[in-house]
Amino acid sequence: MFELTPEMTKRLVKAAMTARGNAYAPYSRYNVGAALLGEDDVIYPGANVENAAYPQGACAETSAISHMVLAGPRRYKAAAVIGSGPDFCTPCGGCRQRLFEFGDASTPIILCKADGSHVVQTLGELLPMAFGPSELPDNMKPILEAYQARRPDVRQA
Amino acid sequence: MFELTPEMTKRLVKAAMTARGNAYAPYSRYNVGAALLGEDDVIYPGANVENAAYPQGACAETSAISHMVLAGPRRYKAAAVIGSGPDFCTPCGGCRQRLFEFGDASTPIILCKADGSHVVQTLGELLPMAFGPSELPDNMKPILEAYQARRPDVRQA
Amino acid sequence: MFELTPEMTKRLVKAAMTARGNAYAPYSRYNVGAALLGEDDVIYPGANVENAAYPQGACAETSAISHMVLAGPRRYKAAAVIGSGPDFCTPCGGCRQRLFEFGDASTPIILCKADGSHVVQTLGELLPMAFGPSELPDNMKPILEAYQARRPDVRQA
Amino acid sequence: MFELTPEMTKRLVKAAMTARGNAYAPYSRYNVGAALLGEDDVIYPGANVENAAYPQGACAETSAISHMVLAGPRRYKAAAVIGSGPDFCTPCGGCRQRLFEFGDASTPIILCKADGSHVVQTLGELLPMAFGPSELPDNMKPILEAYQARRPDVRQA
Repeated sequence: MFELTPEMTKRLVKAAMTARGNAYAPYSRYNVGAALLGEDDVIYPGANVENAAYPQGACAETSAISHMVLAGPRRYKAAAVIGSGPDFCTPCGGCRQRLFEFGDASTPIILCKADGSHVVQTLGELLPMAFGPSELPDNMKPILEAYQARRPDVRQA
Repeated sequence: MFELTPEMTKRLVKAAMTARGNAYAPYSRYNVGAALLGEDDVIYPGANVENAAYPQGACAETSAISHMVLAGPRRYKAAAVIGSGPDFCTPCGGCRQRLFEFGDASTPIILCKADGSHVVQTLGELLPMAFGPSELPDNMKPILEAYQARRPDVRQA
Repeated sequence: MFELTPEMTKRLVKAAMTARGNAYAPYSRYNVGAALLGEDDVIYPGANVENAAYPQGACAETSAISHMVLAGPRRYKAAAVIGSGPDFCTPCGGCRQRLFEFGDASTPIILCKADGSHVVQTLGELLPMAFGPSELPDNMKPILEAYQARRPDVRQA
Repeated sequence: MFELTPEMTKRLVKAAMTARGNAYAPYSRYNVGAALLGEDDVIYPGANVENAAYPQGACAETSAISHMVLAGPRRYKAAAVIGSGPDFCTPCGGCRQRLFEFGDASTPIILCKADGSHVVQTLGELLPMAFGPSELPDNMKPILEAYQARRPDVRQA
């Protein structure tokens, strides 16, 4: 289990706060920033990107995950989320689900108030009894592992 | 209207193809890559990121858009999409919607076969009579413009 | 190709308008109603259902499709969509994609202004060059056909 | 707090199981059924509806919620979810979010194995520290309440 230091916590909160400054949230006016510490020790930021057709928008965590996945890593060690309100911003259920795909129950998630003050919860605390790849048919498991390991031989293209 | 040169087309196709190599698509095994030419003339790549709960996945175009938005630009000049099959890969309807938020009917979209051969369609050809911000109440328009211009004074945080 | 009569058009518009009255749209305040004419000649209505986490909302067309699928049919003959504004309400890109799964390029889609006045477009006009099941690997096709035919023998449970 | 009787539990599980028989899940082959007990004591069923573009699919809980909302109720007393595997099927994070919009931390959620055996968890246990309407700006609250009460005077159309 990854040990999140106060210094790394501070770096992740700061990265999420900076990312929030680029949120595109004209519909909710609720700007959100996120940051993931990838397994490669690189910090991947994200901000929410809304859409006139609301269900087609993307959350800040989705954005951060897509940054990490594009760069290569399939696992992250910790995450931070910061919103625009006076309370601790928790990931929506959809984001907890997306965070679970690349994390696990022990992964620390830093939840911030708008000013950067924060608490830490594990992903297992935020999404107990998670629905994940283990629910899917067994014949998917080697494919899943290959994608997680980035072994290109099982890919189509 | 932006004039897409053969050279820029080639660069966008190549960027989308490279991005595709990092797709996380264990459930569909259909790897997709995308690339946007931002209004700042930077190329923003993206790849699809699937999820065990299928509706929580994100398309390659979503990923590319989130890259661009995080970096600052709110408009792109052209986009390329490449899949893993023998036919020209067209964006799904949801992606056309997301592309429309930051583009317009004249924006060229490059549709590629797995090998990189391609055709070009405008976004207006792919999403005629688009549902967009103009359908929403008038009081949203100044907010929308402020977000598009990245004027931070209307933001909450 | 299905021939949409003026009388059936009127019935679908009316059903969509009635459904709109039950929209749950506190975030956009943009109430939308939809109605599908199933292959069984039953009309299936739907309304949008928003969520505090905007991307987790569902459009009116999604609602109508889920009604039809639950009842059994996997094809519809025509659809109507009505919003809350002075312009013809067109389905968002995501809805065009979902409508395509159970319709085809020739399926008539009735687009309404808030007062019920309308125009008709085919789904092929609204979503040209659609990304659909044909883009997916060949080994999925028998499974797809079985689900479309509601042959339970290929199902897991 | 609602007291879920063994008899009502059985009825909800049975309704979810029947709904599962109409799932359209050719891509995951993971059929899911759901059922909500509305505040009007009517049972609203739902099944998953997948899409060739995976993120455009809808979960069984989304389907059940859309049934209830269309009929009028904005609250449900209990829910059941049943999948196709040997383990208890839990709602994905996105569905927990959608269930939260119309329920609360004390709402019982029945989680079933494919054969109907089950355990009960509250929504608060499945989605602790939920992101909900309370995170949004105060000026949205009267609108939210009006939609929850189905008071049509604040609607646009």
